[in-house]
Amino acid sequence: MALERLPGFRDFYPEPLPHTDVWSADARQFIFAQWRTVARRYGFREYDGPPLEPLELFTTKSGDEIVGQLYNFTDKGERKVSLRPEMTPTLARMVAAHERNYKKPIKWFAIPQLFRYERQQKGRLREHFQFNADLIGETDPAADAELIALLIDTLRSFGLTEQDFVIRLSSRNAWQDFYKNGKRKSESETAEYEFFQAIDKLVRTPKEESEKKLSALGFSLAEVNQFIESGKPTAELESILQNLAARGLRNFVKIDYHVIRGLAYYTGVVFEAFDAKGEFRAIAGGGRYDNLVKLISGGKVNLPALGFGMGDVVLLELLKSRGLLPKFDVHADVFVLIEDENLRADSLKLVQDLRAAGYTVEYSLTPAKSDKQFKRAQELNVGFTAKLDSDAYVRIRNMKTRAEVVAGFSDVVNHLK
Amino acid sequence: MALERLPGFRDFYPEPLPHTDVWSADARQFIFAQWRTVARRYGFREYDGPPLEPLELFTTKSGDEIVGQLYNFTDKGERKVSLRPEMTPTLARMVAAHERNYKKPIKWFAIPQLFRYERQQKGRLREHFQFNADLIGETDPAADAELIALLIDTLRSFGLTEQDFVIRLSSRNAWQDFYKNGKRKSESETAEYEFFQAIDKLVRTPKEESEKKLSALGFSLAEVNQFIESGKPTAELESILQNLAARGLRNFVKIDYHVIRGLAYYTGVVFEAFDAKGEFRAIAGGGRYDNLVKLISGGKVNLPALGFGMGDVVLLELLKSRGLLPKFDVHADVFVLIEDENLRADSLKLVQDLRAAGYTVEYSLTPAKSDKQFKRAQELNVGFTAKLDSDAYVRIRNMKTRAEVVAGFSDVVNHLK
Repeated sequence: MALERLPGFRDFYPEPLPHTDVWSADARQFIFAQWRTVARRYGFREYDGPPLEPLELFTTKSGDEIVGQLYNFTDKGERKVSLRPEMTPTLARMVAAHERNYKKPIKWFAIPQLFRYERQQKGRLREHFQFNADLIGETDPAADAELIALLIDTLRSFGLTEQDFVIRLSSRNAWQDFYKNGKRKSESETAEYEFFQAIDKLVRTPKEESEKKLSALGFSLAEVNQFIESGKPTAELESILQNLAARGLRNFVKIDYHVIRGLAYYTGVVFEAFDAKGEFRAIAGGGRYDNLVKLISGGKVNLPALGFGMGDVVLLELLKSRGLLPKFDVHADVFVLIEDENLRADSLKLVQDLRAAGYTVEYSLTPAKSDKQFKRAQELNVGFTAKLDSDAYVRIRNMKTRAEVVAGFSDVVNHLK
Repeated sequence: MALERLPGFRDFYPEPLPHTDVWSADARQFIFAQWRTVARRYGFREYDGPPLEPLELFTTKSGDEIVGQLYNFTDKGERKVSLRPEMTPTLARMVAAHERNYKKPIKWFAIPQLFRYERQQKGRLREHFQFNADLIGETDPAADAELIALLIDTLRSFGLTEQDFVIRLSSRNAWQDFYKNGKRKSESETAEYEFFQAIDKLVRTPKEESEKKLSALGFSLAEVNQFIESGKPTAELESILQNLAARGLRNFVKIDYHVIRGLAYYTGVVFEAFDAKGEFRAIAGGGRYDNLVKLISGGKVNLPALGFGMGDVVLLELLKSRGLLPKFDVHADVFVLIEDENLRADSLKLVQDLRAAGYTVEYSLTPAKSDKQFKRAQELNVGFTAKLDSDAYVRIRNMKTRAEVVAGFSDVVNHLK
C-alpha cells in the first residue's frame, strides 16, 4: 500500500505542476521572495522561533477561538506542547528575553509555517505560511501607519491595485469606549471579550442571534449598527489616515468598525485586508497588542507593539484569479552538448567552469543521441548550447537569435550574453 | 513567570546577537541563500513536503537508529504521526505519486527543518535545518559523480577549500560483496544490517566489543580492517573518481570504507563530508537508495535514486572556526532626516518614493532632535541621508565621501549611487 501525506498538509512541487491536488514550490518561493524584499525596504529584519512551543504560550493569551483549534499534544518528556498556531506569542517571548540588545522601535518580520487542528473539511488546510511583520516599542499612531503602509506596499508589489484590495481600518479602543459608555447589565470580567466576539462575528451571524447575544450583554443591535454606520474615525485613526495620505496611500484604506479581530490580546488599532470584490477570506489582519509582551514576560518587560499576518493561501488564490502569478518555466542558462564521448571529460570541465562562473548548466549524464540532447536543451528553455569541437574550441549557439560563434575554452563566458 | 522555549529548540535573532545562547537569523539566511544558489546552478529545483508525516513513513524504512529518536505522537484524530526526522521518505513518497510528470533524471532540493527526540543533553539540539539534494531516475555512476560535485561545490561556495574538508567515499555494494563472500554463520535476515551497523560504529566502538559483535556474525575484526585498509576502489567508485577528476575535483575525495551510513535504505555508493582536521561531526552524508521509491509506493513505482543531506549546525561551527562567516551589519540605504515637522508629510512622500524605487529607507517615526536622528543614521550604516530643505528640494549626503548635493524631489534617486 502506498503511503499518503496527512490530511490538511501540502506537498510543494516544482512547476509544471502534475496535478491540481498539489501546490507550486515555485509560486511559494516567489511569494516568500516578494515578502522579504518589501519588508527589507521598510527596514524590517528577519527572525524565527521554534515551530513547537509550550502549550501554555498560546492557551492564556490568544482567546478561545484559536485555542480550540490548537495542534497540541503531550511529548515524550510529558510536556504539554503545541505546533504554533500563530507567531505573535513567540515574538513577544523572544523580544521580552533580549529587548535591551535592540534599538527601539524594533522592526522584525518572519515567514513561519503555522498549524491548526480543526475538524477536517474538504480542502481545508491544517497548515499555512504567514508573513508576519511587527513593530515594537512605539505607541505613536505613526507606527501603525508605517506598518499599514508596509502591508499595502507588500500587496502592491504583487501587482495588486486599489481596484483589487482594501484595508478595513478599525479600533478596539473605539469599541472599548462604546462598551464602557453603554454597559448596563453584565459586570463579569469576560463580558467585554464576549462583546468583542459578538462584534467580530456580526456579519456571519443571523440577525436574531446577534440581537439576543448583544441584548444579554446590555446592548441593542440597532445601537451597534448605528455606531458602525457612522464610520467616524477616532483621533488616532484620523492621524493614521493623514499619515497614509502623505504617502499617497489613502485610497487603499477605509474605516470599517465591523473589524475588531478575534484574538484576545488586541488592544488598539485593528485592521484587515480584503479583496475589493469580497470573493475571498481576509488576505491579512493585524493590530496593536500593547500588553502582550508584559504578559508573556511575567511583568518584566513592558513594550507597546503591533503587527500583522498575511497568509500564503488566500494571497495565492487572489493572485491567480487576477492573473498576477508569473509563469514559472523550467530554465537553464547553458546546455553542454556531448556528441563525441571522447570529449566527455573535457565537457565535464566546461560544465564545471561555467557553473563556477555562476551559470545554471545542464548536460546529459549518460551518452545520448545528439537530437535527443538538443531536444532536452529546448525543453529546458536554455539561453545557449555549448559543444566542444575539439579539446580547445567550443561552439556556442544562442538559442534565441540562432547565432553561432566558436570560442576558446576559457573564453566561453564572454559569449554567453 | 516568564515563558521559555522548549529544550533543544532554537530562537533565531537578527544580528548583532544579544547572547551566545541564541542563533543568528542572518547567518541562517546566508547559509540558505548559498545552498539555493549552488543547487540552482546544478539545475536542481526546490520542493517541500509537510513537517508532519504518518509515523509509518519512517518506522519501516530508515532503520532502528532514527526510529528510536523520532519526535512522534498521536494526534487528535488518533493518527500516529511524527515530526520528520529526515526528508528522504517524504521525497520518495512525492516522487512516487507524480514521477510521470517529470523528465528523468529528476534533480530536486529542499531545505527542511528536521526533528528528533533523544534524551536531552546540554546543548544537544532537537531540530536542525538540512540542505537535501537528490537525483532520481539514473543508475549510472555519472549521477553519483554529479551529486558529489554539487556537494563539493556547495562547501566551496562558502570559501572552504581542500585544506578544510574531505569527502569520504565508500560503497555499500562493496560491503555487501564482502559480507556475502565471507558469511559463515548467521543466516538471519537482519544479520546483514547488523553487520553494516557494526561497520558504521567501528571507529566509535572499543576494539573488543567490535571483535565480539563481528565474530558472532562470522567475521574477524582483522579481515574487516584489512578490507578497509586496502582502500581499493570498486569499478563503480573508480568511475566516480575519474568523473570528478575531469571536473578538477579529485583532490576533495578519498576512498574510505569505514563509511557505510546508518540508515537501512542505502543500497550502493555512500559518502560523508568531514572537516579535514576531524574536529567536528560529519558536515554532510548521503548515498544511493535504489529501492526506497518502490518500497514507499507499495511497488507501483521503481526508480533508482541517490541524495545527500547537509545540516546547518556543523556547517555553521566549521565556518565560524575558519573565519568564513561574513559580518552581518545592520544596514539601510537611506535615512530621511526630518528636522522641520512642517515637512513631515512631504518627507513621508520621499520615504515612500525611495522605497518604491527599491531602496531600504529608515526615518524617525516621531519627532526627534536632529543630532539624535543623525546618530541613528550612523548606527544603521546608511549610505546616504536625505533631508527636505523645502517642499521642492532635497539635500543628499553621501555618508562615505561626505559629499553633499541638492536635488529636486523627483531627482533624488539619481544621486544615490
